[in-house]
Amino acid sequence: MPNGFVQVEDTRLLPGEIEDDLQCKGLRVLQARENYCFSSDSVLLANFATFSAGEVGCELCAGSAVISMLLAAKTPLRDIVAVELQATLAERACRSVARNGLGDRVRIWCGDVKDCVGALGAGTMDAVVANPPYFKVGEGEMSAVPDIAMCRHETHVTLEDVCRTAGKLLRFGGRFYVVYNATRLAELFDDMRRYGIEPKRLVNVQPAEGKKVDTVLVEGKRGGKSGMIVENALRAALEARFTPKE
Amino acid sequence: MPNGFVQVEDTRLLPGEIEDDLQCKGLRVLQARENYCFSSDSVLLANFATFSAGEVGCELCAGSAVISMLLAAKTPLRDIVAVELQATLAERACRSVARNGLGDRVRIWCGDVKDCVGALGAGTMDAVVANPPYFKVGEGEMSAVPDIAMCRHETHVTLEDVCRTAGKLLRFGGRFYVVYNATRLAELFDDMRRYGIEPKRLVNVQPAEGKKVDTVLVEGKRGGKSGMIVENALRAALEARFTPKE
Repeated sequence: MPNGFVQVEDTRLLPGEIEDDLQCKGLRVLQARENYCFSSDSVLLANFATFSAGEVGCELCAGSAVISMLLAAKTPLRDIVAVELQATLAERACRSVARNGLGDRVRIWCGDVKDCVGALGAGTMDAVVANPPYFKVGEGEMSAVPDIAMCRHETHVTLEDVCRTAGKLLRFGGRFYVVYNATRLAELFDDMRRYGIEPKRLVNVQPAEGKKVDTVLVEGKRGGKSGMIVENALRAALEARFTPKE
Repeated sequence: MPNGFVQVEDTRLLPGEIEDDLQCKGLRVLQARENYCFSSDSVLLANFATFSAGEVGCELCAGSAVISMLLAAKTPLRDIVAVELQATLAERACRSVARNGLGDRVRIWCGDVKDCVGALGAGTMDAVVANPPYFKVGEGEMSAVPDIAMCRHETHVTLEDVCRTAGKLLRFGGRFYVVYNATRLAELFDDMRRYGIEPKRLVNVQPAEGKKVDTVLVEGKRGGKSGMIVENALRAALEARFTPKE
C-alpha cells in the first residue's frame, strides 16, 4: 500500500477478526486477537487528551486507531488523522471507523510517521496524540509476531521520530499528549524539548496502590514556556475519572 | 573573602545567631534567624543521598552546610566539601561544622559554584549533592533580604551552572543528588543530560496526602545509560523513612 489516506468499500470482518466493545458510547473496535491489541494505556491517553470544538488533530503510531475513535466520540473535535505504518492495521482501522459511523471525523493515513508531515501539513494540528513503541531494539523481550514487535519496539519508528514529527505537525501553542513507559521519562522530555514541545503536565501512573509507577502521561505545548505541573495517580482512578459516561 | 577553604579559630556564636537542633545524632546547626534558614527540603535531600565508606563528595549551594553535616553524621563518607558563595554563610557554616566536631570530614569552600572545579578537582567526586535556587529571576516573589534572595533566586547561580559544575566534578559513574521544585523538572533533566548526568531515579514529593507534588528528588549518574525509576512519596513518609535513628 503506498502512503496515503486509506479507503475501504467493504467493512465486513475478515477471518480471525473480532469486534471489542470499548465500553464508551457504544464504540466497538476491530482487532485480530493473534496480532497486536490495544492496551489500557490507549484508554488512559484518550482520557487524558482534550479537544475543543472544531479542533483538528493527529494520532501517531495509531495501531487500531482506538484512541482516535475514543477522542472523536468523547470530544467535539472536527477531524483527527490516525497515522499507521502497517497496511493491515491501517486497513482494519479504517473498517473499524466506518463501522462506528465516524468516517467523517476520523481518517486513517497509512505510512511512516517520518513521512506524514508533507501530506498532513506542517503547523496545522491543534493537538497530536501518540502511544509510541516503548522499547529500544535490544531492550525488553521482542515479540515473534512482527506487527506486535513493531508496535512495542522501535524497529521502525523511535521516540525521537515521534517527537520530531509532532513538533512539525503542531501549530504554535498546539498540544502534544503522549503515554509512555516511565523508565524513559528523561528521554521523553529531552526529545520533546529538542523539537520545540515544552512539557507542561506529567501524570505518574501507578498500576495500583503501593505499586511502582510504570507509565507516564505527558502533555506538552508547542512553543510553551518552561514550567510544569506534576501529578500522581492510580490507573484505576484515572480510568474512572476521565472516562465519559454513556 | 577570596575563593578558598574557610578556616576559623573562634567558633563562638555571633550576635543574632542561634543554634538549631537537627534532631539527628545530636547535631546542631548555626543560623541567623533574620537571614536564610535551611528548609525541610535540605533534610529530604540528606535522607535521599547515600555514601559508601571512604567516598568523597561535594555540596553545591550549601548555605548553612546542613546537608553536608547530616551526611557526615549518617553515612561513612570520608570527606565532603560544602561550596557556598556568600562569605557570611560560609564562615558561619565553618563554625557550625567545628562546633559539631566534624571539621575533619566536612570542609567549607567559599566561592562561586562556577569557579570551584579547579580548586576541588575535575572528575574527583563520588557524589555531588545540591539544593539550587528554585526560581528564575523575575519568577516568584524575591526576598528583600539579599542573602535570602540569592539562595532562592538565580541571581548568582543557575540550575544549569549547578549541573555543569556537578558534571565536571563527578567521576565517571558518580552520583548527583538534587532536590528541586517540581515545576522545573523538565529543565532539570535537560540540564543534567546536557552535562553528562543521566537521571536514574525520580521521587515526586507531595507535601501531604492529596496535595499536589511540589518538590522532586532526583538521582543521576555521570555517564549512566538511559533508563530510570519513578517513585511517589509523601514528604512525611520520606522524612520518617530515611532519617536515621539516634
